Amino acid sequence: MSKSLNIAIVGATGLVGRTMLKVLEERDFPVKNIKLLASKSSAGKVMKFKGKDIKVEELKKTSFKGIDVALFSAGGEISKKFAPIAAENKTIVIDNSSYFRLDKEVPLVVPEVNPHHLKKHNYIIANPNCSTIQLLVVLNAINKEYGINRVVCSTYQSISGAGQKGVDKLKEEIADTNKVIGNHRIAYNAMFHPIDESGNSVEETKMVLESRKMLDMPKLRMSVTCVRLPIMGGHAESVNIETKKDFEVKNVHTLLNKEDGIIVIDAPQEEKYPTPYLVDGRDEVYVGRIRKDESNPKTMNLWVVADNLRKGAATNAVQIAEKLLEMKII
Amino acid sequence: MSKSLNIAIVGATGLVGRTMLKVLEERDFPVKNIKLLASKSSAGKVMKFKGKDIKVEELKKTSFKGIDVALFSAGGEISKKFAPIAAENKTIVIDNSSYFRLDKEVPLVVPEVNPHHLKKHNYIIANPNCSTIQLLVVLNAINKEYGINRVVCSTYQSISGAGQKGVDKLKEEIADTNKVIGNHRIAYNAMFHPIDESGNSVEETKMVLESRKMLDMPKLRMSVTCVRLPIMGGHAESVNIETKKDFEVKNVHTLLNKEDGIIVIDAPQEEKYPTPYLVDGRDEVYVGRIRKDESNPKTMNLWVVADNLRKGAATNAVQIAEKLLEMKII
Repeated sequence: MSKSLNIAIVGATGLVGRTMLKVLEERDFPVKNIKLLASKSSAGKVMKFKGKDIKVEELKKTSFKGIDVALFSAGGEISKKFAPIAAENKTIVIDNSSYFRLDKEVPLVVPEVNPHHLKKHNYIIANPNCSTIQLLVVLNAINKEYGINRVVCSTYQSISGAGQKGVDKLKEEIADTNKVIGNHRIAYNAMFHPIDESGNSVEETKMVLESRKMLDMPKLRMSVTCVRLPIMGGHAESVNIETKKDFEVKNVHTLLNKEDGIIVIDAPQEEKYPTPYLVDGRDEVYVGRIRKDESNPKTMNLWVVADNLRKGAATNAVQIAEKLLEMKII
Repeated sequence: MSKSLNIAIVGATGLVGRTMLKVLEERDFPVKNIKLLASKSSAGKVMKFKGKDIKVEELKKTSFKGIDVALFSAGGEISKKFAPIAAENKTIVIDNSSYFRLDKEVPLVVPEVNPHHLKKHNYIIANPNCSTIQLLVVLNAINKEYGINRVVCSTYQSISGAGQKGVDKLKEEIADTNKVIGNHRIAYNAMFHPIDESGNSVEETKMVLESRKMLDMPKLRMSVTCVRLPIMGGHAESVNIETKKDFEVKNVHTLLNKEDGIIVIDAPQEEKYPTPYLVDGRDEVYVGRIRKDESNPKTMNLWVVADNLRKGAATNAVQIAEKLLEMKII
């Protein structure tokens, strides 16, 4: 990658924005210049990038001049308004909000899963939902080898998925035994994401629809229950997968370990398995507890864990940009 | 219930033992005399029962003289040694340890599910595992009406299931960001119960084998993943059930709400659903998020929550004693 790019981060001061900046530095992404954009209230703050002070600027319609790639993570409303402006400027937007994800004209991409979708971009590329990304890396590997018949998934999601506000709520409630901010306490408790008239939470619906889009399997049979927990960072998923072809557990272990972006830790008798705490700050998806589900033919149980701010958001967005360079799309 | 009984609690000073004492008082169980038994180190402590001070005595072979029912919750080793001694004395033991649960000569009972098994007692009755009890109350109701084909369950279990030691570990780790007691941090994390050579945790195996025994369904198809979380008290379960007959969601709602010991809270669009925090101190099993699983015919998703120290342990034990009186077995 000899080419270097002018990068902007929209929402640079948020939890994901800050992680994007860190991941760009850590992965030594070929950055020519970096521009940090945020709302007026955050403009003027100073953030570090490769030892240099970078002043945060207010996001404006003219912000994208000269920018090759803009990483957006400032919520759906900002993406709705500013991504088309950036795209018109021929800046490639990699958008972490849910706003464009199910738009047929917008590729939704996990680089290990469907990089070929990037070719059809029209200057906007959507970054999938955190809980979808980590599951998809694994589902895709299983699907290529055995074919997937049906998926039942229950998630164990950290509060950092709700942004800085969520983290602050947890901290405040932990500090005060009787405090409940909102309708449900998150400290020492389990709660759901907002649920709509379908009876599913938006998070659950996202996981099903985004998975189907990325795997090009519009009828993929998938049932999801998403739960928010008093975990600071890192999402875990208990996944039950019925495959078309039969498998041996040891072959699934080998298959997943060979896959790009997956690390298997699976010696549970010695208490070796991935946890949210263990994967904090890591870019890979971790898999443990690969078990044959004896209650059904050709069915396995897996435990899938990843850092939701990294592979679930910032890392995946940066990897999309890396893939654009590698595929010479940019 | 005009008859009143001499009751002993073995392990009276532990988390479950203390809750047993509280539940006996709250439910106004007909106690003639109460005897509190514990290890030598706890003997001499004073506990309150109906306003009176009761001194904890050291558990000895002679402790059961004149005792009608002994509620045991002092671990498997104590049950192994002392339950047969009590039984020989014609004291009915209701044992909360796992030691006798799968013994063919010992009834394993949830009063709402299989009270008829009590008739065959030989002075020892086993109280099922916490996560099994709450699931079974619900599975039994579904099974009677629709027949169960297969169950996939992922649990969200509080640390109080690991006793006072578990609660202390969580508190210590919450107080210190970097502290990890044992191999896995529980604070802000998710971990498993000890896992054996089968690849399953003892907790997971218990749920399957105990459910099969109580439902008299030795081949019940069931896959379980049990997860321990930084929740102080209350277990939740994400349950996927395939039934033999088809169902309407609204009928499942009505059916479960009518069932003894079950309360349905299911208006998730208004953020109304049960959580571990909400059911703290309650004796019933709570069900929410009754959904049709569109990925498979005749399949539903449920969210099942109960206080693991109450219905999952102390309350169920006391309810067994109540049932013995009601059925005139004692």
